[in-house]
Amino acid sequence: MAQRRRYLFVCVNRRPDGVPKGSCAQRGSVEIHAALKAELAARGMAKTEVRACTASCLDTCWAGPSIAVEPDGYFYGRVTLADVPAIVDALAAGSRVERLVLPPEDFDEKTAHPALPVPAAAPVTPEDQR
Amino acid sequence: MAQRRRYLFVCVNRRPDGVPKGSCAQRGSVEIHAALKAELAARGMAKTEVRACTASCLDTCWAGPSIAVEPDGYFYGRVTLADVPAIVDALAAGSRVERLVLPPEDFDEKTAHPALPVPAAAPVTPEDQR
Repeated sequence: MAQRRRYLFVCVNRRPDGVPKGSCAQRGSVEIHAALKAELAARGMAKTEVRACTASCLDTCWAGPSIAVEPDGYFYGRVTLADVPAIVDALAAGSRVERLVLPPEDFDEKTAHPALPVPAAAPVTPEDQR
Repeated sequence: MAQRRRYLFVCVNRRPDGVPKGSCAQRGSVEIHAALKAELAARGMAKTEVRACTASCLDTCWAGPSIAVEPDGYFYGRVTLADVPAIVDALAAGSRVERLVLPPEDFDEKTAHPALPVPAAAPVTPEDQR
């Protein structure tokens, strides 16, 4: 093993249900970390190129799930499981998924847009459609 | 708040007692993270300059406790609680504590030196001195 070219730090902080700002774990970051780790391993990148680690709160809760991409020094935000292949593709290519990169205003709760992540859509049941 | 100039990722992985390579948490990294967080807050650096986060295994167990300093891209290793003031001094000065920076060979268990951290010395009791 050697120092990896990049490290991903996936916030897996979890707040109690009902706290308005929520938390990355409540929005699926534990599963996102696991999927990143599996995808990096499947592509043979885990031992040399990129290590996916979990992290405590990165203080961008309103834009989570958040991932610090280091040593590049940018954060991905509002990441979903569906974004994992694109993230790993970009890592393999030495590029980044621009639509997920947090701009400076998203590092401040007051200026983040949207202020809180749109909750995952609940499955529509026949009950809801009445 | 804004993106911090630096992020510290302190490995707090814990392995069961008895596993030969041990783990950063067994060597005191949880307390080191707490001390870094407190010292950064006390010096007014936590909200703008440096955020201390915990992380899962950084894969430098044999040289732990390990801390990734990002986006600089170097790791501190074999960190003790006593090193915290020097680490924060260096962060404040924009420098680093060279004696703690892991060289490339410490990223591989086979070439790390020493191979495993020297365990903290047990307190000497009158019993031991007989």
